[in-house]
Amino acid sequence: MRRWNGWGDSANDYPLKPAGAAFLEARLGAGQRLADADLDQVLASVPASRLAHHPLVDTAPETRVRHARGQSLADWLAMRSGDFGVFPDGVAFPESGEQVRELLDWCRDQDVLLIPYGGGTSVAGHINPRAGDRPVLTLSLARLDRLTDLDEASQVATFGAGTPGPSVERQLAERGYRLGHYPQSWELSTLGGWVASRSSGQQSLRYGRIEQLFAGGRVETPTGTLTLPTIPASSAGPDLREMVMGSEGRLGVITEVKVRVSPLPEEEQFHVAFLPDWDSAVLLARRLVQARVPLSMVRVSNAEETRTQLTLAGHERLVAALERYLALRGQPRGRKCMLTFGVTGDKAHCRHALGEARRAIRAAGGVTTGRALGRKWEEARFRSPYLRHGLWERGYAVDTLETCVDWGRVPQTVAAIEQAIRDHAGDGETAHVFTHLSHLYAQGSSIYTTYVFRCSSDYQGTRQRWWAMKRAASDAIVANGGTISHQHGVGRDHAPWLVHEKGERGLAALRDLVTHFDPQGRLNPGCLLED
Amino acid sequence: MRRWNGWGDSANDYPLKPAGAAFLEARLGAGQRLADADLDQVLASVPASRLAHHPLVDTAPETRVRHARGQSLADWLAMRSGDFGVFPDGVAFPESGEQVRELLDWCRDQDVLLIPYGGGTSVAGHINPRAGDRPVLTLSLARLDRLTDLDEASQVATFGAGTPGPSVERQLAERGYRLGHYPQSWELSTLGGWVASRSSGQQSLRYGRIEQLFAGGRVETPTGTLTLPTIPASSAGPDLREMVMGSEGRLGVITEVKVRVSPLPEEEQFHVAFLPDWDSAVLLARRLVQARVPLSMVRVSNAEETRTQLTLAGHERLVAALERYLALRGQPRGRKCMLTFGVTGDKAHCRHALGEARRAIRAAGGVTTGRALGRKWEEARFRSPYLRHGLWERGYAVDTLETCVDWGRVPQTVAAIEQAIRDHAGDGETAHVFTHLSHLYAQGSSIYTTYVFRCSSDYQGTRQRWWAMKRAASDAIVANGGTISHQHGVGRDHAPWLVHEKGERGLAALRDLVTHFDPQGRLNPGCLLED
Repeated sequence: MRRWNGWGDSANDYPLKPAGAAFLEARLGAGQRLADADLDQVLASVPASRLAHHPLVDTAPETRVRHARGQSLADWLAMRSGDFGVFPDGVAFPESGEQVRELLDWCRDQDVLLIPYGGGTSVAGHINPRAGDRPVLTLSLARLDRLTDLDEASQVATFGAGTPGPSVERQLAERGYRLGHYPQSWELSTLGGWVASRSSGQQSLRYGRIEQLFAGGRVETPTGTLTLPTIPASSAGPDLREMVMGSEGRLGVITEVKVRVSPLPEEEQFHVAFLPDWDSAVLLARRLVQARVPLSMVRVSNAEETRTQLTLAGHERLVAALERYLALRGQPRGRKCMLTFGVTGDKAHCRHALGEARRAIRAAGGVTTGRALGRKWEEARFRSPYLRHGLWERGYAVDTLETCVDWGRVPQTVAAIEQAIRDHAGDGETAHVFTHLSHLYAQGSSIYTTYVFRCSSDYQGTRQRWWAMKRAASDAIVANGGTISHQHGVGRDHAPWLVHEKGERGLAALRDLVTHFDPQGRLNPGCLLED
Repeated sequence: MRRWNGWGDSANDYPLKPAGAAFLEARLGAGQRLADADLDQVLASVPASRLAHHPLVDTAPETRVRHARGQSLADWLAMRSGDFGVFPDGVAFPESGEQVRELLDWCRDQDVLLIPYGGGTSVAGHINPRAGDRPVLTLSLARLDRLTDLDEASQVATFGAGTPGPSVERQLAERGYRLGHYPQSWELSTLGGWVASRSSGQQSLRYGRIEQLFAGGRVETPTGTLTLPTIPASSAGPDLREMVMGSEGRLGVITEVKVRVSPLPEEEQFHVAFLPDWDSAVLLARRLVQARVPLSMVRVSNAEETRTQLTLAGHERLVAALERYLALRGQPRGRKCMLTFGVTGDKAHCRHALGEARRAIRAAGGVTTGRALGRKWEEARFRSPYLRHGLWERGYAVDTLETCVDWGRVPQTVAAIEQAIRDHAGDGETAHVFTHLSHLYAQGSSIYTTYVFRCSSDYQGTRQRWWAMKRAASDAIVANGGTISHQHGVGRDHAPWLVHEKGERGLAALRDLVTHFDPQGRLNPGCLLED
């Protein structure tokens, strides 16, 4: 069953192995395990719902608890401490676009605020209700979860917006197709959520971001239905899909999503190589993408991430053999960087792509390994959100943040983000910080930074430690010309930094756009744009 | 010197050869040559300017004549007849974004309407002033025509928005780079115009549409400067670039354009193949793009276009040899369809792509020819706008229109457009109609239809013939779910059909967006959105 206070299914875990625990303790000191609240405590704190009865709305406390928070570290601390603060007054489970329409009208008539809810995986506070006078209805799309049409000639599939990643791929695979959108949250996040937050998946290099996959659909807005027809490309004015993508529930409720799908690939392989140091790894990544080597994913870990991943993975014998092999091939021990890459397609394509990649890796002084580590990556690709549980057990908290900048600014931005986090870990504390590049563009790259730190002696102190680091890193991101989010979205947590990307002039345009569709400010207030 | 009443430089011509003339006469009957007005006549008809003096504004009649019309067939008929109707009251030639800003403020203070002007190549009435009480200033970006920055690491080039195609590529080639955006209007059209109208170029298969190339820049709006930073990808809310692209001068004046560039390719080749019939040609095109064969362009002509192109090209001996060769290879004479395709990149890439393409062509029953026809295409690739002159001399008018639909609807849409044109050629008249697909997407294809018809005995009648066909074809396009424009934009001519793509809900959002940036409705009124 899905956890009420953490990531994923409670059957899945990611305990830290002794070597991993020792590694972290050497860097951060022994952790401090904070006590978890239990569900009964939290249920007792849920106030009475302020909503009138509606047959599609569930006001049971547990349902409201389970839809109150996303998966940011702030959400985690709220859930673990039991100090949720605010709950939605109820959760609706419509089964059709018409029922969504009906609920929107009901909210208007009842003066209720509405928060659209997909998989509840936001790490930026997208779906958290705020305290206020008006009741809040969370609208879950969970029952709009089916493939309703597949146009095989045009390779366009139509889904209910609440369909989660694994269900998208299962329904498509039965027909021989794949979407290929694999964000880290894939296990739980949904098509509609990906559109609403402009998501990107691990294999965006082949399949594109959601911007390239989203072909059309339907949005129920407070002021009417917006229908987005499927047209492969158009020069007929600004693209309305682009207003919906990234709208984070402020314009309306996405009910139907049409996506561009591909035939299941004949072959898919992931490989791992090692580069002598960070500079050569970054340069290689840039060369691979600027030379259009047709890989389906590339991830470049810096030295600290490489060391951490190999240690936490706990494949001691594999790692030891690898270290010996790399030493024999002349790579220094301390600075090596891991490159994980994938090839996807028919056999001839994969052979061609693999050949090109290997040539480029050798030219950059890199060493390719066999497929064992690539297989390990593939097996564990959706496991890392569970790591928060293993660290928590040991008294550590973990968070991630990300941006995207032009290549010319990649190295300085990585350094600035990591330094800002370390500098703001708190008195006498430090943070264990590491970074990878995982979405490459000819113009630049995403930057994804993970930081692990010791919990303070209480929740409030832990939250303060987190916020000091998060804030400093966000300031460093925008100071370097980066977006406040490449793949997580803005939500409530990133909204203060949005002005650096959009400018006051652009922000004013977005505000007016929201007001145009939602003149009463009923949808997800405070998300994306601050009040 | 650039023609005041037609396409391009007056040194360039495209006279119809005897075989071509006979071919058309057999289909349409002998043409009727209408008399052209001369420039002096037109200059005498230019009314006094209603503008106050401004040092950046030229109110000379010839300048106003030369900026009054684009290149649609309606524009052509207006220019050739001398019946322009309306002229701008003056043309400004700012040399910087600051001067554009100053002119916008001046227009506000003087209550003047403003039309941004790039290369003047619109075929949809984008830059035509309308009759009205307020004076109209056309703002030419011609003097913002330089490469001002090239970030080689990030492959981003910064240009003045008025830089025309050949100048873009010349300035980049000096540094070893290419943009690769080649619309049919490339000789005259500009970067800013491409952005404002969401343009697409002949090699969009490799380089992308302007949506993929436009990385950021500056727009001077009536309510302030909109600065679009370069960020490779972002999930931070709706993308403001997407509001600017396709805005057709309604939101502001684009002054600076940052584009994603590529290194000059090591190799580029164009090839021609022939498919037995239209169905197999369309299916092959779809297979090539859905299998991701990395070609840089594909153009599939239907049988009538194939026949017409080969005849008009006038390479009689080449064509005769080709016919014999194809007959030997078993292809029927009447229905063959020409496939033109390109490979671009390093040698290994081109070899790989060419091999894949040839395999697919053979599997589809096609026959590849040598490179001679591909070279002919390359030499003549920007010549076809001049064909209007050659036809006009013989008493024929020519126009083109285009759309884009999902693959599932391509054949029926082509048939419907062609039939609508033929059915509306007028009493006792017919039109010579032919079509190609030239921008392929996994989801569908653009459709580009050319129609040639006899002029009526006067300009008014000729215009009526054109409008009946254009209107019927536009109705057929939207009835089949196509966009009213895949690459030409909306302008004033296509605005009535925009609602079929955007819906009333979407259109209202676009109207509000325009009003947000331009509350007084000063910029290019009637363009994109009808009043």
